[in-house]
Amino acid sequence: MSDFAQWARQVQERMETALALALPPASIAPTRLHEAMRYVTLGGGKRVRPMLAFAAGEAVGADQTPLTAAACAVELIHVYSLTHDDLPCMDDDQLRRGKPTCHVEYDEATAMLVGDALQSHAFEILSQPGLFPDPASQVEMLHVLAQASGSRGMCGGQAVDLASTGRQLDLAELEFMHIHKTGALIRAATLMGGLSGGPLTSEARASLEHYAKCIGLAFQVMDDVLDAEADTATLGKTAGKDAAQGKATYLSLMSHKEARDYARGLLDDALSSLRPLGDASRRLADIARFIVERSY
Amino acid sequence: MSDFAQWARQVQERMETALALALPPASIAPTRLHEAMRYVTLGGGKRVRPMLAFAAGEAVGADQTPLTAAACAVELIHVYSLTHDDLPCMDDDQLRRGKPTCHVEYDEATAMLVGDALQSHAFEILSQPGLFPDPASQVEMLHVLAQASGSRGMCGGQAVDLASTGRQLDLAELEFMHIHKTGALIRAATLMGGLSGGPLTSEARASLEHYAKCIGLAFQVMDDVLDAEADTATLGKTAGKDAAQGKATYLSLMSHKEARDYARGLLDDALSSLRPLGDASRRLADIARFIVERSY
Repeated sequence: MSDFAQWARQVQERMETALALALPPASIAPTRLHEAMRYVTLGGGKRVRPMLAFAAGEAVGADQTPLTAAACAVELIHVYSLTHDDLPCMDDDQLRRGKPTCHVEYDEATAMLVGDALQSHAFEILSQPGLFPDPASQVEMLHVLAQASGSRGMCGGQAVDLASTGRQLDLAELEFMHIHKTGALIRAATLMGGLSGGPLTSEARASLEHYAKCIGLAFQVMDDVLDAEADTATLGKTAGKDAAQGKATYLSLMSHKEARDYARGLLDDALSSLRPLGDASRRLADIARFIVERSY
Repeated sequence: MSDFAQWARQVQERMETALALALPPASIAPTRLHEAMRYVTLGGGKRVRPMLAFAAGEAVGADQTPLTAAACAVELIHVYSLTHDDLPCMDDDQLRRGKPTCHVEYDEATAMLVGDALQSHAFEILSQPGLFPDPASQVEMLHVLAQASGSRGMCGGQAVDLASTGRQLDLAELEFMHIHKTGALIRAATLMGGLSGGPLTSEARASLEHYAKCIGLAFQVMDDVLDAEADTATLGKTAGKDAAQGKATYLSLMSHKEARDYARGLLDDALSSLRPLGDASRRLADIARFIVERSY
């Protein structure tokens, strides 16, 4: 196993433990809701956003405890968004991370409440009094996460995505959608990891922001490529769904080869932007390579 | 118009202005989502939770700017919960505040995203860097709001409510549900108003908490009474719905007279708990009386 694969597995294991502790136990009331929150959150997921938070935290020398809380918070926002996106009124998906989606395993009302409660829980974890040595940086992290989640971030991207179904977008429109739908949370994960170490210099902040912008787009380009190329078993979710639903993807605008070349260009750009952070940013570089070179 | 009615109208007008400024304009993308967020939030509502925040802030001498932000944040959480509760998979309501509900006026997917984005926006408003003179109190307010919104607060109460449909609850179960479903946010509004003035003494905090617990229950008792007695036009939402759906209400456990007497007992308890705060808490006393004596 490569050095990065080992590190990634460590992050995944640490997140599994941290999320299991951070979520209310299924034994306390309301038990069905808590059980369902744990069902959607635990036991799966690549944990890309936590990896970004940990890698950015490593780049600035942040402590593990606040960093773990920041990573949990951003992952819970991601999991909530998946739970709501899978609902019948949205993408109507049956399979997620190789398991029945929440509304299939439980019911629609529970799936909606699970998403709602996970969003609150993300902010609850991140706002624990005394968690960060500097409350002002903690307030800034909360602000970064809230902005990234809302109508000018992830939810806004989701709304644009819905409105675009069955309609051909041009590259600028498609990127507007992705910068919001997935890019905003990827940026937040990276910045929150950085802020876990305290205030950021403007140079470090600019490096992390440009890096996050590039890999956010690369991530989506590769998602479209993999969605079209992979089969359902490898992907752990229903393959080819976006194209079948008439949703705009990069592959409706360019060939597979062009899409892969585009992702590689974004990778180079991301790696360049890390230079001011020096060798401490090597995990961020590893993640960028993983995003573009992964096969699932 | 009574002195309290004038004050309440002032709070409602201030909230209308503050919420209109706090929400993204409908002219910026995604326009349909922003328009729908404004549709559900503006132009209606008793603004009981903002009144509680302002009255508690007045009791401790808090400044208007942070207090207004706190009041907006708690109201946005309330509005998001109404939007989601009205969805077909939940209460399936057609009418709210005298207007078609969000999924009727727009569509289900938009209504879900509106609720999701309003929750994020509440935390975005409350986490504005530099908004409060003391970032540690700001972190505490964020924590109070997040806890009150989540699975051990409002969302948890909603889950218990769903699970109780068609089943007779005893008084203890019914109060467990209401303490979570509506009580948690009423407590949060009151505490956040208090914390807008900086750290609270333990005596002031205990007064506000006990007050909020009493009026939270009184509010729900009176909601059940009014829901059963009023007609749809006066109430601004579909009347008699809870009983028709087989939901547990106070009136399935006691007579109308017993319910009104119970609410009056809670009012007396709430008023007693305010004594340590002195005359500065008179608006909190006014609100408690309003909750028990209102007719809509």
